[in-house]
Amino acid sequence: MSVLAVGTLALDYIETPWDKTEEVLGGSATYIALAARLFTEPVGMVAVAGRDFPDAHKQLLISKGIDLSGLQELSDHDTFAWGGRYHDNINVRDTLFTHLNALAEFDPVVPDAYEDSKVVCLGNLSPDIQTISLNQLSGRGFIACDTMNYWISNTPNALRDVLAQIDCLLINDEEAHQMTGEHNLILAARQIVALGPRILVIKKGEHGAMLFADEHIFIVPGFPLDKVRDPTGAGDSFLGAFAGSLACESHIGLDALKRAVIYGSSVASFCVETHGPFQLVRVLPAAVEERTRLFRGLTEWPISCESLDV
Amino acid sequence: MSVLAVGTLALDYIETPWDKTEEVLGGSATYIALAARLFTEPVGMVAVAGRDFPDAHKQLLISKGIDLSGLQELSDHDTFAWGGRYHDNINVRDTLFTHLNALAEFDPVVPDAYEDSKVVCLGNLSPDIQTISLNQLSGRGFIACDTMNYWISNTPNALRDVLAQIDCLLINDEEAHQMTGEHNLILAARQIVALGPRILVIKKGEHGAMLFADEHIFIVPGFPLDKVRDPTGAGDSFLGAFAGSLACESHIGLDALKRAVIYGSSVASFCVETHGPFQLVRVLPAAVEERTRLFRGLTEWPISCESLDV
Repeated sequence: MSVLAVGTLALDYIETPWDKTEEVLGGSATYIALAARLFTEPVGMVAVAGRDFPDAHKQLLISKGIDLSGLQELSDHDTFAWGGRYHDNINVRDTLFTHLNALAEFDPVVPDAYEDSKVVCLGNLSPDIQTISLNQLSGRGFIACDTMNYWISNTPNALRDVLAQIDCLLINDEEAHQMTGEHNLILAARQIVALGPRILVIKKGEHGAMLFADEHIFIVPGFPLDKVRDPTGAGDSFLGAFAGSLACESHIGLDALKRAVIYGSSVASFCVETHGPFQLVRVLPAAVEERTRLFRGLTEWPISCESLDV
Repeated sequence: MSVLAVGTLALDYIETPWDKTEEVLGGSATYIALAARLFTEPVGMVAVAGRDFPDAHKQLLISKGIDLSGLQELSDHDTFAWGGRYHDNINVRDTLFTHLNALAEFDPVVPDAYEDSKVVCLGNLSPDIQTISLNQLSGRGFIACDTMNYWISNTPNALRDVLAQIDCLLINDEEAHQMTGEHNLILAARQIVALGPRILVIKKGEHGAMLFADEHIFIVPGFPLDKVRDPTGAGDSFLGAFAGSLACESHIGLDALKRAVIYGSSVASFCVETHGPFQLVRVLPAAVEERTRLFRGLTEWPISCESLDV
């Protein structure tokens, strides 16, 4: 595989101020894979579905070139289901329910053909499952990992074991604070990097993202959108695009990582433009590239204020 | 004047997790003027002080080249005083007290020599006082204006009169939301620009700032600081540096405005490094220029991810 997405498949029930949708194709593996395939192929998935997972959802993933040979289907469980409600302030949401279902039985098996994947994405999952997946990888490509507040609070030791094995952690600002007790993101980043990951990306939603790589800091703004319909999957699609763009680089150095953060932000900004993963499904690589060029215009500025040429 | 700062002089009582200081030189006019003088001269001030305003504070301003001929001194009132306490999360603060004192009697008089100031900063003050000041300006240079939640809530009509007369409004993201009821900053910006100011800067604290000018959006990150000691005056020093750098431009177009936002962010990042205005007092223009160059390194990224050259 060029990119391997280890994560969840989910049926999402999402309420926004504008609509209410049910059994939407969701889960971290879904968003990661749909984003990564905009940059590279093949993209494979290690995930678990239940008996109620619609065949249409599977066909959609296959139609986008996602390899599903790592997908387990459990006939005696339903699919992991998540329900959430977004507020008028679309950056705020309540989780309505989390039914683990098949996910509680997930014992990941990485197909032989996936073992030497160039970039491995460990989507948000229990650190134990992340470790079991990691241990099945012989080639050890670049390993990028997500996590969430639940694992930070409840399985800190298992999470530390994961952190010691990965190249890059991608989390949001609240998680960085939670992981370190530190409000200052620069100090939080130093603490997290000391736990293992050489590279850290802190995502800040509408405020963009920060890359910490060795002593370098790179900051990308959030793409200015006048309509955010559904933030579900934004973080996962950031990770998928980040991984996909790295997989197409000949060398994963600072320049490649900067581009990956820009591509992550760009694809995440498409993701939130409509509900579920449907904008990710529709968007073309040329549109991603065009938006990525717009990022440059947002931050570039000309030198020269004569008075300060000291 | 090159830059005129209309605003408050204050004695600040500031508690941070690290220290507690009393009668610190403060107020919007103070921070604006101390920041603007890093870029241009002369810088003048229209403000009011009370009988208890320490001569040492006055001498400090004079020693930094600030013209105080627009300073009123009321012998039967104390100086405006503000007390605030910052939390461990230094971005959160409580106002402990606000004693208007002399400020309640402030009837601004713009000295004749100030009337054709190149850039006028209307610091945070009641919109009525801002209007009285504006009406005394014959030359009408570039007018940049700040406000705050209190005036947005309590004197919306007077504030609208001000907005109709200014070139640029600088507010923070919460104020933009409060002014429009809109959580999406892009939509909020459109509404605010429709009220009059051709140019809008929305400041987002550690997350940087956004410039809206005609159809253009420019975004600058917050400068990554591992130690923020006291955010007091950050917004005012942003405004002062913004104004000061504009005053040294031959033409106030998009490029000049972008630079002004970078300089505003740069100087604000110095301001918060120590308590009160003392870092602003100490910092040299060369250090501002050096930090401004670092901003470029934070956001620049190289083109080329071959796979996406579509």
